Formats: sequence, structure tokens, C-alpha cells
Amino acid sequence: MTGENGTRSGRRPGQSGTREAILDAARARFAEVGFDKASIRSIAGAAGVDPALVHHYFGTKQELLIAALHLPLDPDIIRARIAQVPDEALGEGIVRAVVGVWDTPVGTQAVAAIRTLLGGGDAALARHFLLEVALKDVRVRVDSPPGTGATRVMLAASQMVGLLVTRKILLIEPIASMPVDELAAMVGPNLQRYFTGDLPFS
Amino acid sequence: MTGENGTRSGRRPGQSGTREAILDAARARFAEVGFDKASIRSIAGAAGVDPALVHHYFGTKQELLIAALHLPLDPDIIRARIAQVPDEALGEGIVRAVVGVWDTPVGTQAVAAIRTLLGGGDAALARHFLLEVALKDVRVRVDSPPGTGATRVMLAASQMVGLLVTRKILLIEPIASMPVDELAAMVGPNLQRYFTGDLPFS
Repeated sequence: MTGENGTRSGRRPGQSGTREAILDAARARFAEVGFDKASIRSIAGAAGVDPALVHHYFGTKQELLIAALHLPLDPDIIRARIAQVPDEALGEGIVRAVVGVWDTPVGTQAVAAIRTLLGGGDAALARHFLLEVALKDVRVRVDSPPGTGATRVMLAASQMVGLLVTRKILLIEPIASMPVDELAAMVGPNLQRYFTGDLPFS
Repeated sequence: MTGENGTRSGRRPGQSGTREAILDAARARFAEVGFDKASIRSIAGAAGVDPALVHHYFGTKQELLIAALHLPLDPDIIRARIAQVPDEALGEGIVRAVVGVWDTPVGTQAVAAIRTLLGGGDAALARHFLLEVALKDVRVRVDSPPGTGATRVMLAASQMVGLLVTRKILLIEPIASMPVDELAAMVGPNLQRYFTGDLPFS
């Protein structure tokens, strides 16, 4: 994330235009082929810059994704927290970890980013972000019987997205003001069914 | 809904401006005091027209709400369907009734209306609509122990809103293409826990 502020600013006249061109190219490429298959080289090519400049401005590919989605924090922070939760407690653990972040000052930026996305943003970008970044570890953990992991995490995502909308966007009581512990006890068992329950897979 | 098309159109020069003024006043009033407390008289007053003109253009207060929210069908149609579902089958029944409507041609208009709302619309209007119109009957039915109905229906609403977003806005597979029967079997039991389950009320 160097080059945005500090001593380097102003050195290059077209700097902010170049940054925006890279972010636009990254969003388009991530949406088109997904996070895993998009290369820094292809993004740089689409933006008409040298790949080294992309690394110089944004660091790693994950850091570029964070900037492109206007995420206020690295999803790895939440993933690391969830990695410590045993499978049988994933439901409550994910409510606590995710809602805990939404409720912080940086969470309001995340909510704004998601609101933009729901209002007219790029759905393909959101899908790739959910499957390849945010929910990747959990999908592998709950893939039992084999092949069911994607369905399980997407059902859970549907509950978490709805919880975000009711708690942080529509501000519907009693969900909006419910303490995280209580919310985890209410919603956690439902997430747990999606993750490890005996779902009617056909 | 008379006056929009047909023989009457063009009779009054400022007609479409008047209609919009009434709709704006209705949205503001519904958001401010809710559907039940907002009177046609107060809405007409805010729009600077005679209450009879509001009835002439829009019919009943509920029809005015439908026009103000750009709903493509009367929520009473879904409510009537849900009224026939026994309490112990509400979870699956609501998934079937609601998703069934989303998946029809008129459903795409409902999805567009909700997308607008999530992207920057009036959250207060959405709250009042959910509590006083869409979920009113169910809230009364599941209010056991007494006083828990609002929490139960709002938890269920969080799941349904999230299902709408994943299925119809983000188009995330496998949820986007899942047949309604399968979706009802996957999600219904989770809704049912919210409606009639032993939730940890403090």
C-alpha cells in the first residue's frame, strides 16, 4: 500500500489516475476469471502498466483485492480467528467473529462496501470474493459428504448476508441492538445445521 | 389504481406531478410514523391535495403503499397463501410461497425494488413494511412465549432477505439455480427453529 500518502506523493503527475486504472482493471479481471486465476501480470496489462508498478502501489494480489473492494481490513484476520474454532462450534464462532468486526469502526466501512455492492455493484466480484477468499477455508472444512461444502457455506452465507442487512443496513430491532453473545446463541445453531447438519442432499 | 391509464389520462395537466407528490408524501409519512399510523388525510395534507384525490388515484391505503414501494403485487396474496400453512410447517411453507413469487416475472420487479432499498433507500420504510404488513400475521402466530414474536419473525426475515440477495442479486450457485422444493428442504427447518424452536430468550 505504499505510494498513496507520504513522501512519494506528487512525484508522478498521473499517479492517482494510474492507481485508479489498476484498481478498475483488477475489479474487471477478478469479476471475469476470479481471484485465483487473475494474475498481477494480466491486470497490469489491462491497465497498461508494468506489473512491478502494481506491486509497488498495492503489494500482494490479496492486498490489491482488498483495495479494489474497499475492504477496511484484511479478511485473513477473520479467517485466522475462525481457524481456531472447532467444527462443532463453527456456527456460533462465525457469528461472533464476523458480527464482532461489523460492530467496530472499520466495520462501518465494510458495511458501506457491501451496501454499494448490493445496490448495483458487480455480483461476479462478490461471488468470487465469497468463494475464493472469505469462505475458502470453511468450505474445505465442512465438505462432508464430499462435494457438499460449497452448498453448505453458501447457505450459511445467505444467513450472514441477511443478518448484515437487517442489523447494519435496515437497522431492524431487536436484531440491530442485540448483544453479540445473544445473537450468536440465536443464529449460531442455524449456521451449524448448514455446516455440519444432515441436509437433504439429493 | 384508477387514473394512471385509460380514459381519464390527460384530463388534468399536472396529473403526473400530483401523483408523484402524493407518492413522495406517502413514502415520507410511512417511513416517519409507520403504515398503521399514517392516515390518507395526513398524506394528502403533506402533498397539498384533497384526500379524495388520493383515493381516486390509488384506492386504499394498502394500494397506496404498494404503489409507493413499487411492489409488483399485493402482499396479501402471499399472506393468504401463508395463512393456510399450519404452524409446524411455516418454515418450508414460507420459503415455497416467497421464493415462488420471486421466481415469477413480477418477482423481478420485487427484487429490483428491494435492491434499490438496500442500495440507498429508506430503511425506516422497509422496517415498517416488514413488521406492519408483510410479517404481521406470522408475528402474531408465533408469539410464544408472549412477547417473542417480533424477535422470531425478524430472525426469519434475516434468513429470507439473505436468501433473496444470494439467489436473485448475487446469483450465487448452487442457491441461484436450486429448485424451490430443494431450497425449502434446506432452509425451511432453519426458519422453523426461529418460528417455533426453543430459542435462548433471556
